[in-house]
Amino acid sequence: MAGHDGVARALAHAARARPRRERALAELVAIPSVSSDRRRAADVARAARAVARLLADAGLERVRLLPGARGPLVLAEHRRRAAGRAPCLLIYGHYDVVPAGGGWTATAPFAPLVRDGFLYGRGASDDKGPALCHVAALEAWLRATGRLPVDVVCVFDGEEEVGSPTLRALLRRRGDALGATAAVVSDTRTLGPDRPTLVTALRGSLVGHVRVTGPRADLHSGQHGGVLAGPAEVVARLIASLHAPDGSVAVRGFYAGARRAAPAERARLRRVAPGDRAVLAHAGVAAGAGEPGWGAFERATLRPSLTVARLAAGAKGADSVIPARAEATISLRLVPGQQPMEIAQRVRDHLARRVPPGLRLDVAFGKASRPWSAQRDAPVLTAAERALAASFPRPPARLPSGGTIPVVSALHDAGLPVALMGFARPDDGMHGADERVDLTVLARGTAACVRFLAELGAGSPRQTAW
Amino acid sequence: MAGHDGVARALAHAARARPRRERALAELVAIPSVSSDRRRAADVARAARAVARLLADAGLERVRLLPGARGPLVLAEHRRRAAGRAPCLLIYGHYDVVPAGGGWTATAPFAPLVRDGFLYGRGASDDKGPALCHVAALEAWLRATGRLPVDVVCVFDGEEEVGSPTLRALLRRRGDALGATAAVVSDTRTLGPDRPTLVTALRGSLVGHVRVTGPRADLHSGQHGGVLAGPAEVVARLIASLHAPDGSVAVRGFYAGARRAAPAERARLRRVAPGDRAVLAHAGVAAGAGEPGWGAFERATLRPSLTVARLAAGAKGADSVIPARAEATISLRLVPGQQPMEIAQRVRDHLARRVPPGLRLDVAFGKASRPWSAQRDAPVLTAAERALAASFPRPPARLPSGGTIPVVSALHDAGLPVALMGFARPDDGMHGADERVDLTVLARGTAACVRFLAELGAGSPRQTAW
Repeated sequence: MAGHDGVARALAHAARARPRRERALAELVAIPSVSSDRRRAADVARAARAVARLLADAGLERVRLLPGARGPLVLAEHRRRAAGRAPCLLIYGHYDVVPAGGGWTATAPFAPLVRDGFLYGRGASDDKGPALCHVAALEAWLRATGRLPVDVVCVFDGEEEVGSPTLRALLRRRGDALGATAAVVSDTRTLGPDRPTLVTALRGSLVGHVRVTGPRADLHSGQHGGVLAGPAEVVARLIASLHAPDGSVAVRGFYAGARRAAPAERARLRRVAPGDRAVLAHAGVAAGAGEPGWGAFERATLRPSLTVARLAAGAKGADSVIPARAEATISLRLVPGQQPMEIAQRVRDHLARRVPPGLRLDVAFGKASRPWSAQRDAPVLTAAERALAASFPRPPARLPSGGTIPVVSALHDAGLPVALMGFARPDDGMHGADERVDLTVLARGTAACVRFLAELGAGSPRQTAW
Repeated sequence: MAGHDGVARALAHAARARPRRERALAELVAIPSVSSDRRRAADVARAARAVARLLADAGLERVRLLPGARGPLVLAEHRRRAAGRAPCLLIYGHYDVVPAGGGWTATAPFAPLVRDGFLYGRGASDDKGPALCHVAALEAWLRATGRLPVDVVCVFDGEEEVGSPTLRALLRRRGDALGATAAVVSDTRTLGPDRPTLVTALRGSLVGHVRVTGPRADLHSGQHGGVLAGPAEVVARLIASLHAPDGSVAVRGFYAGARRAAPAERARLRRVAPGDRAVLAHAGVAAGAGEPGWGAFERATLRPSLTVARLAAGAKGADSVIPARAEATISLRLVPGQQPMEIAQRVRDHLARRVPPGLRLDVAFGKASRPWSAQRDAPVLTAAERALAASFPRPPARLPSGGTIPVVSALHDAGLPVALMGFARPDDGMHGADERVDLTVLARGTAACVRFLAELGAGSPRQTAW
């Protein structure tokens, strides 16, 4: 259907459009669309409008914003084939970002800067840059050939970093997967600038908020130091108790249900995935820690983990205060076989047993996101594999990821096979300081997205769903 | 010298001036003179000027501001007798405050409010209210009688909450205790509105800043959860290790040097000092914790302590970050017999032994403030005792305090006996939320300050130093 000539013309258009596309990305990165911060609601909305404009400019139809609790969903589509009779690709990306955090040295988080082929700024690689690859590919097809090889519905999410509540509710409510028959999500990492990946598994996620309160009000360490166990030291004790000295999680039964990978798969990963030294070097630490018997990559992907995202008690300069309350946030990554609510209860019990008398413990868990695994022979996966192979110097690797993309489970539940074809480098600093994106990888990614549409179009006469 | 008639006239003046005095206090409390916060430097300077104006209005002479690193010293005097031949009282107070902190419900921290006989606001009881009692007493004597019973030098500190560096340097440099022969400090607590105290001992203080750094930058718990021991969980482990389950400090040798109180003194305190239930009720906790074998009041005054003032890692909303660094601030209160630098080294060693490989620990201790004990028969103490007895419904109690007033050690080192005559109630919330001061106690305190000057004047013909 698409034809080799169409691909070539679309690729040529995409190549010519690159400078304009990179300027549009910089403009989008400059908008602090932090969905977890309600004070940024106007910025999130502004980013949504910018994305909508890019989709309309690309030639998409029915571009619209659907209000969400923390940020609008941007929807658009291009359909020329009979609904239910032809395949339709759901293209998912997100334009919201995590808070800036500290430690930035390359540039200010929302003052994008291009240097040495990278664009620096919060959201550059997670997920504004990769999301715009798809917009660029759609534009390339529509502007260069006047058509798309396959019907598409675009969903650009403003709430990915807070669990995609609006999109998940929409998918549940509609029940028809928005008319799509497969989905592509570009929110994962490559193995390097030359070597793309297809992510075949994601861990689930569960966030817990721990709070210890004690005295009615802040106390003074001169007046009360020695009288009581303060909330700050008790929160430290509770959080410390969650790990054994070797770095494994010390909550009883935490690992019990976790399904173990097959020996053949572990052997394959030992060949393909980064080794311990590479994983530690990438994390920027001299030594690892964690569950014994598993390599660093395995611990970060196949095995569950519990990390501490936040500790908070007292205030800078208030050196003689005994704070009346102390908080911690823990992030659990779960794998198939673990029941999130059961794990939450185990953590709760573990902590409750360790709170000394006179102090109050509150533990609140957010909504769990389930782990996900791809069907290994889904056509959408093989189409992505071929598109990536043709667009990058080295062939794609199939790898599990330790991350969580709640919407992937939601798309899966809606009946869609999902291809996770990411364009962020492992050293792009997603969620950290000096986040960036490699503009060469984005150019290759855009080409892969162009080819991916062609591959899907080529496949479509032989099947109505992938 | 002073005469009974002079006392009566001064007391009558002080009683008439009460409404004006309380308005002046509210105006001073409204100024956020937070000395630990450099962004508040202009407010600290503004508060200094307000105090200087009150001193000048009271009739003090040579009112002047001496620049300090975090806030000016306000100096004033009234001398009519030959230097070195007559006693001269150094009146010490401080107008700086600790940061507001959270949890205020009565009013905003710097929006003073009078309710049910209390003035609420940061600094109301620590130390703006009590400091102004002395200014009111000086004004009462000078306006009602045209003279003071004794020479005075006033020192109002803008850096008490950051360790009084400027005043301590001045005392060391001058070497003459500013010409004073004794000092009074009103920065301690009463046992209640009816029962004043004379504080006869203070604990020393040592603040430690702990920082753990690990990865080069913040990481993502999806990508790296399970790979490493994060700085936040390691700081929790380190801080947790500082206490045994019973609440005592677990650093080896922490208690070893601490001098033990005499059995007779412990027996006296059991009669006079608040019991365990009262101390815990006052702290607002249902259960205590700490070194076994000592009561709650003893643990808070006679025994050293280690509390946690601050935990900081990550940011609100950034639930999937593994923060690259984590910090804690610990507050040590030390007693005679403990060597601060030796204790600091023990804490450092204790922590260093517990840092897992791959992470970096930094521990920085501030300057130590030494503990202090009064000479039990110092005339300045007995004069204060008589003045308090005549001004409050119940006689004063001599009590040790768990707090630290670095300037008291400095005054002691300068050769001055010090009377610690405080006008803050134990439930005034010093350093906490909803700090307040009891205006009735301040009126009694002002009367005590009036009588204290008379007592010192009456004593002075018989002695040149107290």
